Amino acid sequence: MSTNTVFTIGRQFGSGGRQVGKNLAEKLGIPFYDKELIAISAQDSGLSEALFSNADEKATSSIFYSLVMGNYPMASGALGVTEMPLNDQLFLIQNKTIKRLASEGPCVIVGRCADYVLREMKNTINIFIHADLENRVERAIRVYEVEEKKAEDVCLKTDKQRANFYNYYSDRKWGMCRTYDLSLDSGKLGIDGCVEQIIYYEQLWQKNKGKAI
Amino acid sequence: MSTNTVFTIGRQFGSGGRQVGKNLAEKLGIPFYDKELIAISAQDSGLSEALFSNADEKATSSIFYSLVMGNYPMASGALGVTEMPLNDQLFLIQNKTIKRLASEGPCVIVGRCADYVLREMKNTINIFIHADLENRVERAIRVYEVEEKKAEDVCLKTDKQRANFYNYYSDRKWGMCRTYDLSLDSGKLGIDGCVEQIIYYEQLWQKNKGKAI
Repeated sequence: MSTNTVFTIGRQFGSGGRQVGKNLAEKLGIPFYDKELIAISAQDSGLSEALFSNADEKATSSIFYSLVMGNYPMASGALGVTEMPLNDQLFLIQNKTIKRLASEGPCVIVGRCADYVLREMKNTINIFIHADLENRVERAIRVYEVEEKKAEDVCLKTDKQRANFYNYYSDRKWGMCRTYDLSLDSGKLGIDGCVEQIIYYEQLWQKNKGKAI
Repeated sequence: MSTNTVFTIGRQFGSGGRQVGKNLAEKLGIPFYDKELIAISAQDSGLSEALFSNADEKATSSIFYSLVMGNYPMASGALGVTEMPLNDQLFLIQNKTIKRLASEGPCVIVGRCADYVLREMKNTINIFIHADLENRVERAIRVYEVEEKKAEDVCLKTDKQRANFYNYYSDRKWGMCRTYDLSLDSGKLGIDGCVEQIIYYEQLWQKNKGKAI
């Protein structure tokens, strides 16, 4: 199957959105970027992976917290930009990496506001994967080995953090239908069902592009 | 194509969601209910169509407004229930109609909280159709003959009213991915693309039902 499309995937924690993206990339024979973006951004910038890992999908902390932590404003221009919170600087660096990877060819990118970062590109399909809390809790325990009594809390808090991150750095709303081209309940369709649906979507989209509604 | 599924369709104004539903119903050879629900609810209840039409997809007005209009609380038990705002009573009557129609066989139902009303049924697919404001404004002018200078306003206000209606009568959020099984940007896929995507979704869903994520 040949494609020129960049697929971005937003996802609720425990929905299997990451796995959908991974299986999609495998099926299409294209690169897959999730946590991989951390190492690549670190390599691109010469900064440590730990820095990116720590800031991963987190919005800039409150000014008070940042002052306490000593990262607002930057004391020195270590990253080439002063007077900007650390997480914002790392976000800008990661954006460059995302744009570079997307310009190199078709791929699947999970999270990191990729749909917003790539909003000027015409060959993107932006997807959101979600599922009932019950399904997500079950998956969080089974796949991510989250403690049973904490699983619900982890799902809800991670989603809150992802929404904060997304809404802070974009002018869109995380988890709203209108933010994405396609959203799917993985609990209804299963992981492989979502992958098949996305592949079919791309074919239809290529065929129908430019048709008025 | 044979189906046993009840499709419910939520939609942004001007997205063509109604047309998607109509074409889907035609393609599957099953009944289609949008404004039709008004006449059927009127017939079911013996009340006038004008009553239902006036309350269509509107949440109960504020108490002040209702007092002024003389419909809160009901002065008499004309509809068999006293002490309940008129719109709430009409909503309950319409729900009965929706449940009856859905129990009679596969069909497509547009709006009216149908996904929520039918939440206990297992053979439903809940869909949301949306599109960029630009696309919707263009369609509103062309298809609904909305005045050009008012079109954007009509789109935004109708959506606000639909969201109010939906959020008032359900415990879900209108236009959020997690409320639906599938959401699609009709501006990307076109009307017929959306129909094809939904038909494919149903096939995948029948095949994958019950598979864990």
